[in-house]
Amino acid sequence: MSEAEAVRVIGLWASPFVIRVLIALKLKGVKYELVEEVVGKKSELLLRSNPVHKKIPVLLHHGKPISESLIIVQYIDEVWSSDAPAFLHADPYTRAVQRFWAQYVDDKGTDDGGKDQAAEQLSAALQLLEEAFVKLSQGKHYFGGDSVGYLDIALVSYVGWVKAVEKIAGVTLLDKAKVPNLVAWADRLCTHPAVVDAIPDADKFVEFSVTYGSFSKPIINGPK
Amino acid sequence: MSEAEAVRVIGLWASPFVIRVLIALKLKGVKYELVEEVVGKKSELLLRSNPVHKKIPVLLHHGKPISESLIIVQYIDEVWSSDAPAFLHADPYTRAVQRFWAQYVDDKGTDDGGKDQAAEQLSAALQLLEEAFVKLSQGKHYFGGDSVGYLDIALVSYVGWVKAVEKIAGVTLLDKAKVPNLVAWADRLCTHPAVVDAIPDADKFVEFSVTYGSFSKPIINGPK
Repeated sequence: MSEAEAVRVIGLWASPFVIRVLIALKLKGVKYELVEEVVGKKSELLLRSNPVHKKIPVLLHHGKPISESLIIVQYIDEVWSSDAPAFLHADPYTRAVQRFWAQYVDDKGTDDGGKDQAAEQLSAALQLLEEAFVKLSQGKHYFGGDSVGYLDIALVSYVGWVKAVEKIAGVTLLDKAKVPNLVAWADRLCTHPAVVDAIPDADKFVEFSVTYGSFSKPIINGPK
Repeated sequence: MSEAEAVRVIGLWASPFVIRVLIALKLKGVKYELVEEVVGKKSELLLRSNPVHKKIPVLLHHGKPISESLIIVQYIDEVWSSDAPAFLHADPYTRAVQRFWAQYVDDKGTDDGGKDQAAEQLSAALQLLEEAFVKLSQGKHYFGGDSVGYLDIALVSYVGWVKAVEKIAGVTLLDKAKVPNLVAWADRLCTHPAVVDAIPDADKFVEFSVTYGSFSKPIINGPK
């Protein structure tokens, strides 16, 4: 079995949850094959691999399925522990704080609500994350400090959608005047080699959103 | 600073999320002080310790707050790693499966819905967990195998409420005919020294539910 066959991701390019798995694999230098789902359908492989939730992403490692994006990111961190700096900090308290904010990001990211509400909630959440960045980064480049960490991966996966919301709703969420550190962080991380290919251009998300309805949970969480 | 002052839990005895933190601390032999919240109020200490969610439980370790029960359980596992068998398995794949089911338990446990819906959803969830138990326990006593693990802690914390639902709705959820392994597991784990004191009698939950309204998210998740 070749390396490429050993690691497969069942997913869809537009899902933040899939994007974070791809970023995690790229950071660890793991070769993978992306098995794309079709919107509105669920493949036999997906149904068999994640029978409980029937949602993307699923990581298949030597055929064994792992579901739920943040669980997959931790799995990748643990299996390929020596291939790149650890995503989670060595100190248990810092790990707990990283996990807290990653969970917060997902709670906010999957809130129901219309366009305006989504924009408003995002804006408030970004403000809190700006403050968290200052505490966690300790003056360095990332939430993880010197290297891209668990919370960096969890959060940057939404940047494509945030930029799409800005275009569609005509608002500025990543506002330099309000969240300067977060804007600098996003600009920096989006040019990182492990991230640049994983997050398509905002226009692609806008197009996707026009075609399929962007702000509904099913699309972002995975095809129904 | 004494040991007792070093570890404090802000909580409420009826919350499954608090119960799991107490069980985790007892399993590791860590002395703690439970700082009880009053239903319908939020203490100054809680608001200061968990300003984002304002929810119990919060673990205070030497004054530093950690929120979200499953994050706290992992923190306890990592800090007191040598004081008892690890809650999470050494193998990354098994860890991922433990995390998957613990998250599933919380998704189901906090679903909105009336009494009948809650009972029906619980019944379906218990069936899946019965199957997961057979796979994970490998013929041993717990989800964690020989010792009480992460998923054991996550799930057993609901047993008091499940028994209360049985009494109130007049249904049998922990049904030996349907989920024999899970019933045996619950009976076994509820007599474990680390669990026996943490989960009060079902009648106490029924009484709590009559007083405050049992199946609403706010009560189970923490006082509003």
